Amino acid sequence: MTLSTPFPPPGSKAELEEGSTLSPRFGADGLVTCITTDVATGEILMVAHMNAGALARTLETGEAWYWSRSRGELWHKGATSGQVQTVLEMRIDCDQDALLLKVKVAGDGGCCHTGRRSCFYRKMEITDGKPRLVVD
Amino acid sequence: MTLSTPFPPPGSKAELEEGSTLSPRFGADGLVTCITTDVATGEILMVAHMNAGALARTLETGEAWYWSRSRGELWHKGATSGQVQTVLEMRIDCDQDALLLKVKVAGDGGCCHTGRRSCFYRKMEITDGKPRLVVD
Repeated sequence: MTLSTPFPPPGSKAELEEGSTLSPRFGADGLVTCITTDVATGEILMVAHMNAGALARTLETGEAWYWSRSRGELWHKGATSGQVQTVLEMRIDCDQDALLLKVKVAGDGGCCHTGRRSCFYRKMEITDGKPRLVVD
Repeated sequence: MTLSTPFPPPGSKAELEEGSTLSPRFGADGLVTCITTDVATGEILMVAHMNAGALARTLETGEAWYWSRSRGELWHKGATSGQVQTVLEMRIDCDQDALLLKVKVAGDGGCCHTGRRSCFYRKMEITDGKPRLVVD
Protein backbone atom coordinates (compact mmCIF):
# COMPACT_ATOMS: atom_id res chain seq x y z
CA MET A 1 0.00 0.00 0.00
CA THR A 2 1.25 3.46 -0.80
CA LEU A 3 0.81 6.22 1.74
CA SER A 4 1.11 8.98 -0.85
CA THR A 5 -2.27 10.54 -1.50
CA PRO A 6 -4.33 7.95 -3.33
CA PHE A 7 -7.22 10.38 -3.89
CA PRO A 8 -7.66 12.64 -6.90
CA PRO A 9 -7.60 16.39 -6.23
CA PRO A 10 -11.02 18.04 -5.86
CA GLY A 11 -12.69 18.85 -9.18
CA SER A 12 -15.38 21.40 -9.92
CA LYS A 13 -17.98 22.39 -7.34
CA ALA A 14 -20.53 20.20 -9.14
CA GLU A 15 -18.19 17.18 -9.12
CA LEU A 16 -17.32 17.79 -5.48
CA GLU A 17 -20.93 18.04 -4.38
CA GLU A 18 -22.80 15.72 -6.74
CA GLY A 19 -20.16 13.43 -8.22
CA SER A 20 -19.24 9.89 -7.29
CA THR A 21 -15.50 10.57 -6.97
CA LEU A 22 -14.02 10.59 -3.49
CA SER A 23 -11.73 13.63 -3.52
CA PRO A 24 -11.44 14.83 0.07
CA ARG A 25 -10.52 18.46 0.60
CA PHE A 26 -7.67 18.03 3.07
CA GLY A 27 -6.90 21.30 4.85
CA ALA A 28 -3.60 23.16 4.90
CA ASP A 29 -2.60 20.75 7.69
CA GLY A 30 -3.40 17.77 5.43
CA LEU A 31 -6.40 16.74 7.54
CA VAL A 32 -10.16 16.34 7.33
CA THR A 33 -12.49 16.20 10.32
CA CYS A 34 -14.00 12.83 11.12
CA ILE A 35 -17.06 12.21 13.28
CA THR A 36 -17.46 8.70 14.64
CA THR A 37 -20.83 7.33 15.74
CA ASP A 38 -22.09 4.06 17.14
CA VAL A 39 -23.74 2.23 14.25
CA ALA A 40 -26.35 0.67 16.54
CA THR A 41 -27.44 3.70 18.56
CA GLY A 42 -26.32 6.68 16.47
CA GLU A 43 -24.54 8.13 19.51
CA ILE A 44 -21.69 10.45 18.65
CA LEU A 45 -18.60 8.85 20.15
CA MET A 46 -15.71 11.12 19.15
CA VAL A 47 -14.34 13.69 16.73
CA ALA A 48 -10.90 13.09 15.27
CA HIS A 49 -8.90 13.80 12.13
CA MET A 50 -7.68 11.83 9.15
CA ASN A 51 -4.95 12.51 6.66
CA ALA A 52 -4.85 10.74 3.31
CA GLY A 53 -2.89 7.82 4.77
CA ALA A 54 -5.36 7.31 7.62
CA LEU A 55 -8.31 7.43 5.23
CA ALA A 56 -6.62 4.97 2.86
CA ARG A 57 -5.88 2.52 5.68
CA THR A 58 -9.43 2.83 7.00
CA LEU A 59 -10.83 2.03 3.56
CA GLU A 60 -8.41 -0.86 3.10
CA THR A 61 -8.77 -2.48 6.49
CA GLY A 62 -12.37 -1.68 7.45
CA GLU A 63 -11.08 -0.45 10.81
CA ALA A 64 -10.77 3.19 11.87
CA TRP A 65 -7.35 4.81 11.52
CA TYR A 66 -6.87 8.45 12.43
CA TRP A 67 -4.07 10.97 12.44
CA SER A 68 -3.02 11.80 15.97
CA ARG A 69 -2.29 15.53 16.03
CA SER A 70 -0.78 15.34 19.50
CA ARG A 71 1.57 12.47 18.66
CA GLY A 72 2.06 13.38 15.00
CA GLU A 73 1.52 9.83 13.79
CA LEU A 74 -0.97 7.44 12.27
CA TRP A 75 -3.24 6.04 14.95
CA HIS A 76 -4.93 2.67 14.69
CA LYS A 77 -7.69 3.30 17.20
CA GLY A 78 -7.83 0.49 19.73
CA ALA A 79 -4.45 -1.02 18.88
CA THR A 80 -3.40 -0.76 22.53
CA SER A 81 -6.77 -0.47 24.32
CA GLY A 82 -8.60 -3.17 22.38
CA GLN A 83 -11.28 -0.63 21.49
CA VAL A 84 -10.88 -1.27 17.77
CA GLN A 85 -13.57 0.35 15.63
CA THR A 86 -14.99 -1.77 12.82
CA VAL A 87 -16.40 0.58 10.18
CA LEU A 88 -19.86 -0.43 8.95
CA GLU A 89 -20.59 2.73 6.98
CA MET A 90 -18.69 5.80 5.83
CA ARG A 91 -20.22 9.03 4.56
CA ILE A 92 -18.81 12.35 3.38
CA ASP A 93 -20.34 15.80 3.43
CA CYS A 94 -21.30 18.11 0.57
CA ASP A 95 -17.95 19.85 0.14
CA GLN A 96 -15.92 16.77 1.08
CA ASP A 97 -14.10 18.17 4.07
CA ALA A 98 -15.80 16.11 6.76
CA LEU A 99 -16.24 12.36 7.15
CA LEU A 100 -18.78 10.36 9.12
CA LEU A 101 -17.95 6.85 10.34
CA LYS A 102 -20.53 4.48 11.74
CA VAL A 103 -18.68 1.90 13.81
CA LYS A 104 -18.92 -1.05 16.13
CA VAL A 105 -16.46 -0.75 19.00
CA ALA A 106 -14.63 -3.84 20.24
CA GLY A 107 -13.19 -4.47 23.69
CA ASP A 108 -15.13 -2.77 26.47
CA GLY A 109 -16.95 -0.57 23.94
CA GLY A 110 -15.28 2.60 25.14
CA CYS A 111 -14.02 5.36 22.94
CA CYS A 112 -12.85 8.27 25.09
CA HIS A 113 -9.42 8.28 26.69
CA THR A 114 -11.10 9.22 30.00
CA GLY A 115 -12.67 5.75 30.01
CA ARG A 116 -16.13 6.87 28.98
CA ARG A 117 -18.04 5.48 26.07
CA SER A 118 -18.35 8.87 24.31
CA CYS A 119 -16.14 11.97 24.46
CA PHE A 120 -19.25 14.17 24.71
CA TYR A 121 -20.05 13.41 28.35
CA ARG A 122 -20.64 17.00 29.41
CA LYS A 123 -23.64 19.18 28.73
CA MET A 124 -23.62 22.98 28.89
CA GLU A 125 -26.02 24.63 31.27
CA ILE A 126 -26.56 28.34 31.68
CA THR A 127 -26.64 29.40 35.32
CA ASP A 128 -26.94 33.09 36.19
CA GLY A 129 -26.10 33.91 32.60
CA LYS A 130 -22.89 31.89 32.68
CA PRO A 131 -22.19 28.60 30.90
CA ARG A 132 -21.32 25.64 33.09
CA LEU A 133 -20.37 22.08 32.14
CA VAL A 134 -22.23 19.22 33.79
CA VAL A 135 -21.42 15.54 33.43
CA ASP A 136 -24.60 13.60 32.73
CA MET B 1 -22.20 42.03 24.12
CA THR B 2 -18.47 41.96 23.74
CA LEU B 3 -16.98 39.91 20.95
CA SER B 4 -13.63 39.65 22.66
CA THR B 5 -13.15 36.14 24.01
CA PRO B 6 -15.53 35.74 26.92
CA PHE B 7 -14.12 32.33 27.83
CA PRO B 8 -11.26 31.68 30.27
CA PRO B 9 -8.14 30.08 28.80
CA PRO B 10 -7.88 26.30 29.23
CA GLY B 11 -6.61 25.22 32.64
CA SER B 12 -4.95 21.97 33.62
CA LYS B 13 -5.75 18.70 31.90
CA ALA B 14 -7.93 17.71 34.87
CA GLU B 15 -9.87 20.99 34.76
CA LEU B 16 -10.25 20.73 30.99
CA GLU B 17 -11.53 17.17 31.13
CA GLU B 18 -13.42 16.96 34.39
CA GLY B 19 -14.12 20.55 35.40
CA SER B 20 -17.30 22.58 35.02
CA THR B 21 -15.60 25.55 33.35
CA LEU B 22 -16.24 26.09 29.66
CA SER B 23 -12.78 26.93 28.28
CA PRO B 24 -12.80 25.91 24.61
CA ARG B 25 -9.47 25.14 23.02
CA PHE B 26 -9.74 27.30 19.91
CA GLY B 27 -7.17 26.30 17.31
CA ALA B 28 -4.47 28.47 15.75
CA ASP B 29 -7.21 29.71 13.41
CA GLY B 30 -9.37 30.68 16.41
CA LEU B 31 -11.93 27.98 15.67
CA VAL B 32 -13.43 24.86 17.19
CA THR B 33 -15.28 22.17 15.24
CA CYS B 34 -19.02 22.00 15.74
CA ILE B 35 -21.27 19.05 14.90
CA THR B 36 -24.96 19.81 14.56
CA THR B 37 -27.60 17.12 14.95
CA ASP B 38 -31.38 17.01 14.79
CA VAL B 39 -32.60 16.92 18.39
CA ALA B 40 -35.56 14.70 17.50
CA THR B 41 -33.87 12.08 15.32
CA GLY B 42 -30.18 12.33 16.22
CA GLU B 43 -29.33 12.65 12.52
CA ILE B 44 -26.06 14.46 11.86
CA LEU B 45 -26.98 17.52 9.83
CA MET B 46 -23.71 19.38 9.31
CA VAL B 47 -20.21 20.11 10.52
CA ALA B 48 -19.16 23.74 10.84
CA HIS B 49 -16.87 25.91 12.93
CA MET B 50 -17.24 28.46 15.70
CA ASN B 51 -14.95 31.16 16.94
CA ALA B 52 -15.40 32.71 20.38
CA GLY B 53 -17.85 35.28 19.04
CA ALA B 54 -20.02 32.69 17.33
CA LEU B 55 -20.08 30.54 20.46
CA ALA B 56 -20.94 33.54 22.64
CA ARG B 57 -23.81 34.56 20.36
CA THR B 58 -25.09 30.99 20.23
CA LEU B 59 -25.13 30.83 24.03
CA GLU B 60 -26.78 34.25 24.31
CA THR B 61 -29.46 33.81 21.66
CA GLY B 62 -30.20 30.08 21.78
CA GLU B 63 -29.79 29.98 18.00
CA ALA B 64 -26.80 28.58 16.13
CA TRP B 65 -24.17 31.05 14.97
CA TYR B 66 -21.06 29.81 13.17
CA TRP B 67 -17.93 31.29 11.68
CA SER B 68 -18.02 31.11 7.90
CA ARG B 69 -14.49 30.27 6.80
CA SER B 70 -15.32 30.93 3.13
CA ARG B 71 -16.83 34.35 3.79
CA GLY B 72 -14.67 35.21 6.79
CA GLU B 73 -17.62 36.42 8.86
CA LEU B 74 -20.03 35.49 11.61
CA TRP B 75 -22.88 33.46 10.19
CA HIS B 76 -26.33 33.36 11.73
CA LYS B 77 -27.47 30.09 10.20
CA GLY B 78 -30.85 30.55 8.52
CA ALA B 79 -30.83 34.35 8.54
CA THR B 80 -31.47 34.38 4.79
CA SER B 81 -32.86 30.86 4.19
CA GLY B 82 -35.21 30.75 7.16
CA GLN B 83 -33.51 27.53 8.29
CA VAL B 84 -32.74 28.97 11.73
CA GLN B 85 -31.45 26.39 14.22
CA THR B 86 -32.87 26.59 17.73
CA VAL B 87 -30.38 24.99 20.11
CA LEU B 88 -31.98 22.59 22.58
CA GLU B 89 -28.77 21.10 23.94
CA MET B 90 -25.05 21.82 23.69
CA ARG B 91 -22.26 19.44 24.64
CA ILE B 92 -18.46 19.64 24.54
CA ASP B 93 -15.89 16.89 24.23
CA CYS B 94 -13.23 15.72 26.64
CA ASP B 95 -10.45 18.09 25.57
CA GLN B 96 -12.84 20.93 24.73
CA ASP B 97 -11.99 21.32 21.07
CA ALA B 98 -15.26 20.05 19.61
CA LEU B 99 -18.86 21.08 20.23
CA LEU B 100 -22.09 19.18 19.69
CA LEU B 101 -25.34 21.06 19.09
CA LYS B 102 -28.75 19.40 19.15
CA VAL B 103 -31.11 21.64 17.22
CA LYS B 104 -34.60 22.07 15.82
CA VAL B 105 -34.46 23.52 12.31
CA ALA B 106 -37.04 26.12 11.25
CA GLY B 107 -38.26 26.90 7.74
CA ASP B 108 -38.29 23.89 5.46
CA GLY B 109 -36.09 21.94 7.89
CA GLY B 110 -33.13 21.91 5.52
CA CYS B 111 -29.55 22.36 6.52
CA CYS B 112 -27.29 21.76 3.54
CA HIS B 113 -26.70 24.47 0.93
CA THR B 114 -27.49 21.86 -1.75
CA GLY B 115 -31.08 21.86 -0.49
CA ARG B 116 -30.86 18.57 1.34
CA ARG B 117 -31.74 18.05 4.96
CA SER B 118 -28.27 16.81 5.91
CA CYS B 119 -24.85 17.50 4.38
CA PHE B 120 -23.98 13.78 4.68
CA TYR B 121 -26.11 12.58 1.77
CA ARG B 122 -23.42 10.38 0.20
CA LYS B 123 -22.24 7.00 1.32
CA MET B 124 -18.90 5.44 0.34
CA GLU B 125 -18.98 2.13 -1.45
CA ILE B 126 -15.99 0.07 -2.45
CA THR B 127 -16.28 -1.23 -6.01
CA ASP B 128 -13.38 -3.17 -7.53
CA GLY B 129 -11.21 -1.96 -4.68
CA LYS B 130 -11.98 1.71 -5.36
CA PRO B 131 -14.10 4.04 -3.23
CA ARG B 132 -17.17 5.51 -4.86
CA LEU B 133 -19.73 7.99 -3.53
CA VAL B 134 -23.40 7.11 -3.80
CA VAL B 135 -26.31 9.39 -2.92
CA ASP B 136 -28.83 7.49 -0.81
